[in-house]
Amino acid sequence: MPYVKIEITREGATPDQKARLIEGVTDLLARELNKNPATTVVVIDEVDLDNWGIGGLPVTQFRRQLQATRDRQAG
Amino acid sequence: MPYVKIEITREGATPDQKARLIEGVTDLLARELNKNPATTVVVIDEVDLDNWGIGGLPVTQFRRQLQATRDRQAG
Amino acid sequence: MPYVKIEITREGATPDQKARLIEGVTDLLARELNKNPATTVVVIDEVDLDNWGIGGLPVTQFRRQLQATRDRQAG
Amino acid sequence: MPYVKIEITREGATPDQKARLIEGVTDLLARELNKNPATTVVVIDEVDLDNWGIGGLPVTQFRRQLQATRDRQAG
Amino acid sequence: MPYVKIEITREGATPDQKARLIEGVTDLLARELNKNPATTVVVIDEVDLDNWGIGGLPVTQFRRQLQATRDRQAG
Amino acid sequence: MPYVKIEITREGATPDQKARLIEGVTDLLARELNKNPATTVVVIDEVDLDNWGIGGLPVTQFRRQLQATRDRQAG
Repeated sequence: MPYVKIEITREGATPDQKARLIEGVTDLLARELNKNPATTVVVIDEVDLDNWGIGGLPVTQFRRQLQATRDRQAG
Repeated sequence: MPYVKIEITREGATPDQKARLIEGVTDLLARELNKNPATTVVVIDEVDLDNWGIGGLPVTQFRRQLQATRDRQAG
Repeated sequence: MPYVKIEITREGATPDQKARLIEGVTDLLARELNKNPATTVVVIDEVDLDNWGIGGLPVTQFRRQLQATRDRQAG
Repeated sequence: MPYVKIEITREGATPDQKARLIEGVTDLLARELNKNPATTVVVIDEVDLDNWGIGGLPVTQFRRQLQATRDRQAG
Repeated sequence: MPYVKIEITREGATPDQKARLIEGVTDLLARELNKNPATTVVVIDEVDLDNWGIGGLPVTQFRRQLQATRDRQAG
Repeated sequence: MPYVKIEITREGATPDQKARLIEGVTDLLARELNKNPATTVVVIDEVDLDNWGIGGLPVTQFRRQLQATRDRQAG
């Protein structure tokens, strides 16, 4: 009967990968807390990159900035 | 002032059906808890079938499996 | 298989009132969208008044302000 | 490490506006609660108008009704 | 950078069990989607039994009813 | 009419701090997206430390580990 929401950036997760997330989380809850898989609900929410912020920036800018920092350190 | 989120699989709910969900939930909260309809927010989230898991499987596979079981029992 | 989250301020909803919310939402989804009640999950989240904001204010202050406005208009 | 979800109706918010929401919420949490911006996650969820209810109506109808009331009062 | 919310009924999950849920979900996202564990957030929400509905009933009543059905079938 | 959920670890945020979060987020949405403050809902969810995971660990262990790393680097 648990409910699990997984929020990730929308970057091409395949149906197979999503199926393995669903299976993996359901198994985990059965194994650790003895939850019934038959009534475990898992919802995956894929979020557009513009709509996901981290470090005060949209994730695309955040990654660019991170890469620039690494390039400078390596340069 | 309540907030209600309804998550369903995306399977063609019509605008009219969604309007009746919004009206029904708002009325329910007014009737049972005396909540003010004017500030009751209802958000409907339609989730792609690949992104909804139940019984450890994406819902499409889950339904196929359920149907196969029924067919065997009936067969 | 729907999942519904109801967020309300914590103000003494009784177990009976919560049971009627659960029943009412489940019935509504069965009636309007033909959803199976057996797998409809409803979660009620009661939120402390300090943690609920509306109109830019915690709800307790918001109500006080609203009352003051009404008193002035009536006075 | 905070997580913030912002739900708004889908009405053409631009990437720049969304970037400013992400920056503004992250700054607010750093300033008021000393939360580390580097691990603050902000997710913006844009909801179709048919799927957003207020006052017991889908938001498009709600606004039409509000406008009609104002027109009558002004007329 | 994923965010995962796990909602379960409040029935005495221990800190160790919760730590294993956090570890398990984080590992799963790293393994299946190559997500960085350092920025994966997992939030566990334990919900009072009165506030969790399934099959149109608060979960305590739902289980009692399920048990009664089984007893009758076995009796 | 926006809805905002802020999830933070439960570590003694005061009512005043929470009021400033509510005010700040509401102002931000009015300023950037012209959203009506009167119907902006902000909900703050304070999560127990055992129930918040980051980096595959409950946050308390995560911080201890981070501190140990820093101590070693400084030592």
